[in-house]
Amino acid sequence: MATLVEIEDPADPRLADYRDLRDVELRKALEAEHGLFLAEGEKVVRRSVEAGFEPRSFLMAPRWLEGLGDVLATTDAPCYVLSEALAEQVTGFHVHRGALASLERRPLPSVESVVAGARSVLVLEDLVDHTNVGAIFRCGAALGFDAVLLAPRCADPLYRRSIKVGMGAVFTLPWTRVDDWATALPRLSELGFTTVALTLADDATEVEQAVAGLDKVALVLGSEGHGLSPRWERAADRRAVIPMAAGIDSLNVAAATAVACYVTARRS
Amino acid sequence: MATLVEIEDPADPRLADYRDLRDVELRKALEAEHGLFLAEGEKVVRRSVEAGFEPRSFLMAPRWLEGLGDVLATTDAPCYVLSEALAEQVTGFHVHRGALASLERRPLPSVESVVAGARSVLVLEDLVDHTNVGAIFRCGAALGFDAVLLAPRCADPLYRRSIKVGMGAVFTLPWTRVDDWATALPRLSELGFTTVALTLADDATEVEQAVAGLDKVALVLGSEGHGLSPRWERAADRRAVIPMAAGIDSLNVAAATAVACYVTARRS
Ligand SMILES: C[S@@+](CC[C@H](N)C(=O)[O-])C[C@H]1O[C@@H](n2cnc3c(N)ncnc32)[C@H](O)[C@@H]1O
Ligand SMILES: C[S@@+](CC[C@H](N)C(=O)[O-])C[C@H]1O[C@@H](n2cnc3c(N)ncnc32)[C@H](O)[C@@H]1O
Repeated sequence: MATLVEIEDPADPRLADYRDLRDVELRKALEAEHGLFLAEGEKVVRRSVEAGFEPRSFLMAPRWLEGLGDVLATTDAPCYVLSEALAEQVTGFHVHRGALASLERRPLPSVESVVAGARSVLVLEDLVDHTNVGAIFRCGAALGFDAVLLAPRCADPLYRRSIKVGMGAVFTLPWTRVDDWATALPRLSELGFTTVALTLADDATEVEQAVAGLDKVALVLGSEGHGLSPRWERAADRRAVIPMAAGIDSLNVAAATAVACYVTARRS
Repeated sequence: MATLVEIEDPADPRLADYRDLRDVELRKALEAEHGLFLAEGEKVVRRSVEAGFEPRSFLMAPRWLEGLGDVLATTDAPCYVLSEALAEQVTGFHVHRGALASLERRPLPSVESVVAGARSVLVLEDLVDHTNVGAIFRCGAALGFDAVLLAPRCADPLYRRSIKVGMGAVFTLPWTRVDDWATALPRLSELGFTTVALTLADDATEVEQAVAGLDKVALVLGSEGHGLSPRWERAADRRAVIPMAAGIDSLNVAAATAVACYVTARRS
């Protein structure tokens, strides 16, 4: 059972993991340095612990204790209990869903182990938006994809916002980062995947055609601003487009992923 | 040509349209009362004016003047010019994309006029998230949908964040609000549309089947939390589901819309 610790002082050093949640840059540095990530909201906190991540601590207002009682029963980590007003002072914003947990990150697995046995994989290049990364995990999990690979500079799927938008899919869908950007796609091809770049390039074929008949597929998505790098675009085995109405620039990357996953999941 | 007005005092009453952009509740009240909406970022500001919305004023740092020179040339509205630091004081946040415009809302058109000639329509019930509403407009426009109808309580597509996420699609895709929630779907059926509720209900058929062979289709989407109201779910002519992997609750509504629009746009 977690040890309940009542907190009266918002400057209490034991709350260090929960400070200034609005400051993305500060949080990135702090979380990387301490190898932690934060889960927010009863559902996501529960899923993180159930998925086997080791809690460092919990932070919540008294009224959330009961709902998470079963989760707290499974751990020895401290649970800091404080008023919502104090919680707001510490975190820098109103904690809507009341409960937070700080958990240990795990070493990232190898690409080979993550894609072993997978038939449909997503590969994200340099996405910058945590909302998009979270949305893509949720959608990949829902539409039956088996794993996600991230380029070295893709936004962190364990950032609080990614986890929340992804409804915790990042805890269950196997994922890792490729260590070498330049060789990532050729390496997947060697592992038996047909890499299909989603792109607006002129020579792209319609996505249904591009994935038809393929066994192991890796869909490759580009960043919100500039799309895929020329290197990845060239390195992919195929280039696929989702046809759009005239005069439209592009789909949001999460919408493009939803469509591409749906089509790929139903390939014959 | 817009009149350039240099601003030195962040409390200048002429900047009233631009205050406290982070305070959603305050902004909703202010924008409704004055019949205005805000466009943010060079691209979106340009699109709003090109779409024929009447600017009340512009607000930008000096370095954005040049890029928007052609837009400013088309109007007599004042353009308030101030440093980025001052702009931040007024709006309450760092104005990344530098330029803001305040524009007049227009009277909402009738449902009949919006769906006249349309073959594929989106209907959103009580969505609360401006990001989702914006994403859905962008995706509907990209995938060839002709119009969007909103339930009385659906989040505002002209809210700054909706417009930004939607990349201005709300300016070009015809839309309006239904005035009567209870009769909205039967009325669409009378107008010749088959209303297809996207839902996780047990009796739903797969979406490809549900839309196959239909002429005029209205896809009906429910809110992020509770999904469609029982009333709308019953009132729809058909119920359709996007098949998901075992153990997954649901897709995000914007992802569900992307898939459903794609499938519906390609119905035979
Ligand atoms: C917002 S788009 C980037 C747009 C960028 N200006 C470009 O030209 O690639 C982000 C990513 O979504 C995917 N995407 C968006 N719309 C697409 C479409 N219609 N077909 C295929 N992929 C698309 C691509 O992977 C793209 O890199
Ligand atoms: C996040 S879901 C709402 C989930 C809600 N708990 C429910 O049971 O309906 C928001 C909306 O997206 C649509 N949606 C999400 N996943 C779907 C799926 N797999 N099939 C059909 N519609 C879906 C529905 O219109 C739903 O009302």
